[in-house]
Amino acid sequence: MQDIQLIINRIHDAMVPRLGEGKVADYIPELAKIDPKQFGIAVTTVEGETFVAGDALVPFSIQSISKVFMLTLALGKAGETVWNRVGREPSGSAFNSIVQLERESGIPRNPFVNAGAIVVSDIVMAGHQPREAIGELLRFVQYVADDDSIIIDNAVAKSENATGYRNYALANFMRSFGNLHHPVEHVLGVYFHQCALAMTCSQLSRAGLFLANQGRNPLSGHTVVSARRAKRINALMLTCGHYDGSGDFAYHVGLPGKSGVGGGILAIAPGKASIAVWSPGLNKVGNSALGSAALEMLANETGWSVFGA
Amino acid sequence: MQDIQLIINRIHDAMVPRLGEGKVADYIPELAKIDPKQFGIAVTTVEGETFVAGDALVPFSIQSISKVFMLTLALGKAGETVWNRVGREPSGSAFNSIVQLERESGIPRNPFVNAGAIVVSDIVMAGHQPREAIGELLRFVQYVADDDSIIIDNAVAKSENATGYRNYALANFMRSFGNLHHPVEHVLGVYFHQCALAMTCSQLSRAGLFLANQGRNPLSGHTVVSARRAKRINALMLTCGHYDGSGDFAYHVGLPGKSGVGGGILAIAPGKASIAVWSPGLNKVGNSALGSAALEMLANETGWSVFGA
Amino acid sequence: MQDIQLIINRIHDAMVPRLGEGKVADYIPELAKIDPKQFGIAVTTVEGETFVAGDALVPFSIQSISKVFMLTLALGKAGETVWNRVGREPSGSAFNSIVQLERESGIPRNPFVNAGAIVVSDIVMAGHQPREAIGELLRFVQYVADDDSIIIDNAVAKSENATGYRNYALANFMRSFGNLHHPVEHVLGVYFHQCALAMTCSQLSRAGLFLANQGRNPLSGHTVVSARRAKRINALMLTCGHYDGSGDFAYHVGLPGKSGVGGGILAIAPGKASIAVWSPGLNKVGNSALGSAALEMLANETGWSVFGA
Amino acid sequence: MQDIQLIINRIHDAMVPRLGEGKVADYIPELAKIDPKQFGIAVTTVEGETFVAGDALVPFSIQSISKVFMLTLALGKAGETVWNRVGREPSGSAFNSIVQLERESGIPRNPFVNAGAIVVSDIVMAGHQPREAIGELLRFVQYVADDDSIIIDNAVAKSENATGYRNYALANFMRSFGNLHHPVEHVLGVYFHQCALAMTCSQLSRAGLFLANQGRNPLSGHTVVSARRAKRINALMLTCGHYDGSGDFAYHVGLPGKSGVGGGILAIAPGKASIAVWSPGLNKVGNSALGSAALEMLANETGWSVFGA
Repeated sequence: MQDIQLIINRIHDAMVPRLGEGKVADYIPELAKIDPKQFGIAVTTVEGETFVAGDALVPFSIQSISKVFMLTLALGKAGETVWNRVGREPSGSAFNSIVQLERESGIPRNPFVNAGAIVVSDIVMAGHQPREAIGELLRFVQYVADDDSIIIDNAVAKSENATGYRNYALANFMRSFGNLHHPVEHVLGVYFHQCALAMTCSQLSRAGLFLANQGRNPLSGHTVVSARRAKRINALMLTCGHYDGSGDFAYHVGLPGKSGVGGGILAIAPGKASIAVWSPGLNKVGNSALGSAALEMLANETGWSVFGA
Repeated sequence: MQDIQLIINRIHDAMVPRLGEGKVADYIPELAKIDPKQFGIAVTTVEGETFVAGDALVPFSIQSISKVFMLTLALGKAGETVWNRVGREPSGSAFNSIVQLERESGIPRNPFVNAGAIVVSDIVMAGHQPREAIGELLRFVQYVADDDSIIIDNAVAKSENATGYRNYALANFMRSFGNLHHPVEHVLGVYFHQCALAMTCSQLSRAGLFLANQGRNPLSGHTVVSARRAKRINALMLTCGHYDGSGDFAYHVGLPGKSGVGGGILAIAPGKASIAVWSPGLNKVGNSALGSAALEMLANETGWSVFGA
Repeated sequence: MQDIQLIINRIHDAMVPRLGEGKVADYIPELAKIDPKQFGIAVTTVEGETFVAGDALVPFSIQSISKVFMLTLALGKAGETVWNRVGREPSGSAFNSIVQLERESGIPRNPFVNAGAIVVSDIVMAGHQPREAIGELLRFVQYVADDDSIIIDNAVAKSENATGYRNYALANFMRSFGNLHHPVEHVLGVYFHQCALAMTCSQLSRAGLFLANQGRNPLSGHTVVSARRAKRINALMLTCGHYDGSGDFAYHVGLPGKSGVGGGILAIAPGKASIAVWSPGLNKVGNSALGSAALEMLANETGWSVFGA
Repeated sequence: MQDIQLIINRIHDAMVPRLGEGKVADYIPELAKIDPKQFGIAVTTVEGETFVAGDALVPFSIQSISKVFMLTLALGKAGETVWNRVGREPSGSAFNSIVQLERESGIPRNPFVNAGAIVVSDIVMAGHQPREAIGELLRFVQYVADDDSIIIDNAVAKSENATGYRNYALANFMRSFGNLHHPVEHVLGVYFHQCALAMTCSQLSRAGLFLANQGRNPLSGHTVVSARRAKRINALMLTCGHYDGSGDFAYHVGLPGKSGVGGGILAIAPGKASIAVWSPGLNKVGNSALGSAALEMLANETGWSVFGA
């Protein structure tokens, strides 16, 4: 058995001198206020142990990482019909690009670009008021993390709504193609709240554990999804989880992962562990600079890459 | 130990009634002549055993699967500098799209779209005449497959050259950006010959074995690449190996793979086996219809998906 | 002197058997209710005489033709600084395309595509409440037409607002680039009301007369714009007035013109006359099918093409 | 009657202090050698008089201006069927863009972008060897200019061929869609030779005179095209003659025109005159900087804009 604590301590030591690298997302005013000189990492193994280093107990805005949980909810509700309204292919463009939507008649490329996640929100809302859908997501994340203390940061949600013109554009554009069924304001209300989920690395690594363990959280004993669905969500994370840096992440890290502009990344080592890293500075494709570097070190030292021992 | 022969027999039985599904590539006249009602599969395990079923000993045109071997050669020659001239991201568009090249100044998205493979050919040619580069590739494929009987089908190469206007367009376009260093005719001569490699499923599964086994072919004892490079090539195959169907293949099969319009697919189960399937009919994104179905069955029955046991 | 009444009678006779050609715009519910079998034409010469035929006294929704009047207002307010926020080039794409906006950082190609007209509305609004800006436009159109009976059809404005998702997308998208200064809802309120101007051919031909007469309406004696500005607006109408059918219209008709999806077209024969035609059925690029045909006949019979006697 | 000599003298005086503005095209080595500090202008009226100023008797490479003559030839041969293979709409993109071709299945937007002119060359070649087609064009230009001394500069043609990768890309791309009927090398041979026509402003203004005079050259008495066709060619020049600066040229100058990267512009004032200007420095959309300025002055002083007296 590997000494994971030792490994993540080493990673933490390697990252400390680099604190502040990258550029904090500034288009969401609340996120721009974050101190960039933070780094946290948490690893939860399928055996149920959690190892942490650095700022692993500081809550941060998980932003797009929430797309993984929303997709899981949507698949639970609508099954494979989800794929009638959103694709499963890498986008080949930026996270908020609208060009592809025009070319492909309002069907987003995948559930992990903004447009796709907005459609997923619309699917999760079926039969619900926005407030109920937000509540449902929050309870679901608390459930998979087995932690009722997780909250949504309403200041962040409000901040996103006030400046989210691009997302309003995407949503209205899809609505013009009939690919949103609820009012744009309602869907984006849900969308902005999911982005504003605040979690620590420690909570996040536990919340992702079901994906590393054939759909079942070994801590709580909850079966969240089937083994097949867990694999498929992992596949989507690997091919589409880092926007237009997905290929690069697969090349260097070799693990399914999902990043958020808050500087967090959730990575899954199937059969091994769930990993959460966080550091606010982003590289030029919008993924945590130190987070990516830390995960590359981790994959190298553990041999957890899915592409070969 | 799983009974692989049993599994592939079952797959073969399931495919026989579907023979003829899909559409044979007809833009290369020589390929259009192939009898579509063929299906072969070969699995070579890292222990060195090869299992076959169906038309596994019939040679077929491997076409774009050769891009894996050319990339391996180019990385051997130029190392990571390869990535100065070609990207590592999924393209989000068709295999022969030129749009992306205009937007991104002649740098192809990845080495597995046509434009990228043409640049890779240009890299492999450094210091060589076209004939020498073709010879070098053929010897390399014979070496990794440990089989000197593998040949290039010159009729196919000639047929591609006579109708390869789109590839001429891509090559000239990149040359206009300075991203080809040799004359277009020479580079495409090499490119068309690599596509015309004729191999059986059995040969192909053995040729890919080094990628499943940390860079070393256990049959011949040859170390082809480092373990790290093997992982990285697998990562590229997973994210970019099936053109605009790569996400779908990852979702359903969960293995690194590379398809060719001749109807072949090479798939890698890291630490387990190298697999080759072949059936000429293509689905609408240009990958073997029955080949994809067979690999999905295989992944399900063996549990070899990289995304979870 | 040509007998214009005779010519437009002949045109009317030629159009009657074709009534109903084309397809009525159905994405705006109120417009979809219009009887397609209508055709009207009015010609107002620079000498001040108006000739009419067919349904020239039936009010119709002028839709995008209003963009000419809004641009005139905006140029009056902001002068050539208008061009800092909107281009002057044909778009090479559909009237409601968003792709170009992404590529060109939120600056629309010209004031006659929807995005451009929305920016123009934003410019006209400077220092005004939406209601005031709408009032200002209405008074301006009444002034140039010298007819106080012209109204805005609020049912149409409301109908457009309820289904105008694409325009909401365009506006939010531009706002995300900082190229809208007022709230999206306000700007679109103004935009939808201008589109809902209801005018007859007779009113419209008189309203356009200043453009045919060096900026001065000879009927009212009002100087609306300078001679140079009139020429420039005509130039924009010729290169950009018919969306992606502008080249075709110039080729066949040879007059500056602006079409609307209500089936109207305003055409200017500089130094000669202002012409308005109306027939609801649209051709495949969104311009009135019979209106275009009628104007081609008119240009042929009068020799008014700007491209040669 | 205006004193045209006086006007062009004034224009010449205004341009002299600005000699050297803009940037000489350097992607064709032969053109890069030209002294940028040159400016010439020639006006030939429909009455048959030619007025010149500056370097109006210095031959220069007319480059894309030749597209007007080739289109005239092609229309003479194939009539309106030309439009089955090339569009008539402004492109909304750069002169050598390939993106539009992919989106629109190999049909170029108009005959004045490179791709369109290559198709036009293919049409003119029907039944001819390249050498014959080149000879035919040269004789045609000599005929419309009524001047047998006009030649093709073979050094320029050779220079373009050696560096014309982008044009090779365009041609091969269209060939892949079946929109070129002759071998790519042959068509481009013709294309590069037409671009290499060397003419003086004085010769060029006379060569364009038929377009200003209802299709007939009043100097030679030759009827080159019908009055209708002359109008239509003028319409195409106005909407598409200056690449992605066509709208701007119409706005400021208001005359049909065609520019070339050699720094020449041919402009037509229907019923009035044919004008040729030349100055090698190009503005950022690829049109002669001083040439454009000179034509704006000319249009202002003569009132020849087609958009109003």
